[in-house]
Amino acid sequence: MSEIPRPAATLFDSPFMRACRREPTPYTPVWLMRQAGRYMESYRQIRARVSFLELCKTPDLAAEVTVDAVERLGVDAAIIFADILLILEPMGMQLEFSPGDGPVLHNPLQTAADVERLREVDAAESLSFVMQAVRAARTALAPDVPLIGFAGAPFTLASYMIEGGSSRQYTRTKQFMYTQPQAWHALMALLSRNVGRYLNAQAAAGAQVVQLFDSWVGNLSPADYRAFVLPHSREVIAAVTPGVPVIHFGTGTNALLELMREAGGDVIGVDFRVELDDAWQRLGDVAIQGNLDPAVLMAERPYICRRVQDILRQAGGCAGHVFNLGHGILPTTPVDNVRALVDDVHELSARGPS
Amino acid sequence: MSEIPRPAATLFDSPFMRACRREPTPYTPVWLMRQAGRYMESYRQIRARVSFLELCKTPDLAAEVTVDAVERLGVDAAIIFADILLILEPMGMQLEFSPGDGPVLHNPLQTAADVERLREVDAAESLSFVMQAVRAARTALAPDVPLIGFAGAPFTLASYMIEGGSSRQYTRTKQFMYTQPQAWHALMALLSRNVGRYLNAQAAAGAQVVQLFDSWVGNLSPADYRAFVLPHSREVIAAVTPGVPVIHFGTGTNALLELMREAGGDVIGVDFRVELDDAWQRLGDVAIQGNLDPAVLMAERPYICRRVQDILRQAGGCAGHVFNLGHGILPTTPVDNVRALVDDVHELSARGPS
Repeated sequence: MSEIPRPAATLFDSPFMRACRREPTPYTPVWLMRQAGRYMESYRQIRARVSFLELCKTPDLAAEVTVDAVERLGVDAAIIFADILLILEPMGMQLEFSPGDGPVLHNPLQTAADVERLREVDAAESLSFVMQAVRAARTALAPDVPLIGFAGAPFTLASYMIEGGSSRQYTRTKQFMYTQPQAWHALMALLSRNVGRYLNAQAAAGAQVVQLFDSWVGNLSPADYRAFVLPHSREVIAAVTPGVPVIHFGTGTNALLELMREAGGDVIGVDFRVELDDAWQRLGDVAIQGNLDPAVLMAERPYICRRVQDILRQAGGCAGHVFNLGHGILPTTPVDNVRALVDDVHELSARGPS
Repeated sequence: MSEIPRPAATLFDSPFMRACRREPTPYTPVWLMRQAGRYMESYRQIRARVSFLELCKTPDLAAEVTVDAVERLGVDAAIIFADILLILEPMGMQLEFSPGDGPVLHNPLQTAADVERLREVDAAESLSFVMQAVRAARTALAPDVPLIGFAGAPFTLASYMIEGGSSRQYTRTKQFMYTQPQAWHALMALLSRNVGRYLNAQAAAGAQVVQLFDSWVGNLSPADYRAFVLPHSREVIAAVTPGVPVIHFGTGTNALLELMREAGGDVIGVDFRVELDDAWQRLGDVAIQGNLDPAVLMAERPYICRRVQDILRQAGGCAGHVFNLGHGILPTTPVDNVRALVDDVHELSARGPS
């Protein structure tokens, strides 16, 4: 835990919420993608008893790991424990998390008819377990700790649905886009509606902020992003309940930043392949989240501290910086390094620009 | 084959060589990474008899597939059939290409001692089969068709040596860099020397141009590239025999372009995540190679033609554009689409900017 006393702020005035609105904060707020996960002993103990999917679908446990991570790390925000692919089940996809292999969709989409068979999802109902977890986490969290809800962005979800799992090159996805543009846009529009409702259901259940994960969109050219993705991501973001800040995140998006900003979001989430000063120069008045390479957390503590310093320097003490990794915490990360990172961010940023 | 008659040019004045020097050309020269490969029936027939590694190590066969691709496609340059990992064997790595799984290095590097055990390689001798293939291909090729030699860049080779194969996140490689910087730089310096000699041996055997493949360097932040990669890539490029143009290629390098240019190269090779006009604006007076998404070749021919047109428009008829894909041809690509692509590039670019 940081030794900087947490100011007795309301939720609305917490450093994280203020940073999302580009308001000055006493220190740079920090949270970490996958802050509840396999690198943590308490999480592994729970996973020894239940599968990943069972954990996602058991609201008390999902809330427990959500809150536990915040308490152990001293981060400035919680993120509900869930998975971006959960929404695909009620849509009609056969989802499995096979240990080792990652997610598998057993009925990948190939044709327009496959897309037509998919269902509209009322997430408040079909994913009621997520809403219950959000409510339970909100109740258990300290009243000034914001809770982040999240969903996969249409492109990233579509890529899993078409590839049948993770991919390196997204060839099937691109082929689908290029050769069946009508079916592609129908799929993306359906996903946009479902994801928009899903994010709003999480906000209604108690999430103060939502993050849209377009994790794999950095595999597209700018022209493809504009033609095949932007209108749909914009649809989702525009549908989010007013007053709920949206973090719009992707990896490998250096060439897409202006287009992602055009699609929307109060905070643009970037990975380590973007330089924060360059990003701000290009994007103007928007908050930015990022961007330590998660691999840095495998190094020694003085090295981690130096890299944190570099990022804070690049952010230049700007209002509107949310510190995060460029991607999720790696499963083999020493938990002490993660704690040290959070403390470093708090302490170094509280001192002001060096 | 293109119907545009090939001008009776010398090798030095061939469109591809001229483009490498940013001199005007009658049409945009084109070649394709992995133009000899599994998507081609004639290649598959050979591979039905010999393994991938045997093919690489049999000069007559390697030369045959090299030349065959040029003749079937009508491209403006040949690239010697080989693999970037071949040099790792004489260095002391146990290399295997296991069908389906891709390359495996059975003794991945973990410590400084592992690096110390590696050997300096005199490629002209240790990889004499490559030089024989270069000589045979040079003899068999039409006298005005340039032949490209190539090697993996130090970072990309190091990543295979440390990960033990392909990777998604390069965690081990980065951890090695961050925690054992001395051993890292020793490894990169050794690779630079070996790769420099290897490229020059290919030039001496008959390659007119060399390409340095830093295929995976786009997974690094700009700061990491500058600290851990740039000096070594610069070393390699500076060592190349004067008069032999160097193509410096990487994928996902949008944030690294200026730094790659600083490292060197007469031609900067970019993938589809870079926009050519933007790249030229940023890089100034250098030739650029790229950058159609290989997945586009899975689409219908009119669509391919449109995408070729887009790229030629972005290149703006600039002297110094070498048309290529953003990465290698996908194994499931219809060969007729590849032929059509080559014709489209020739015909559309000969017409001038539209």
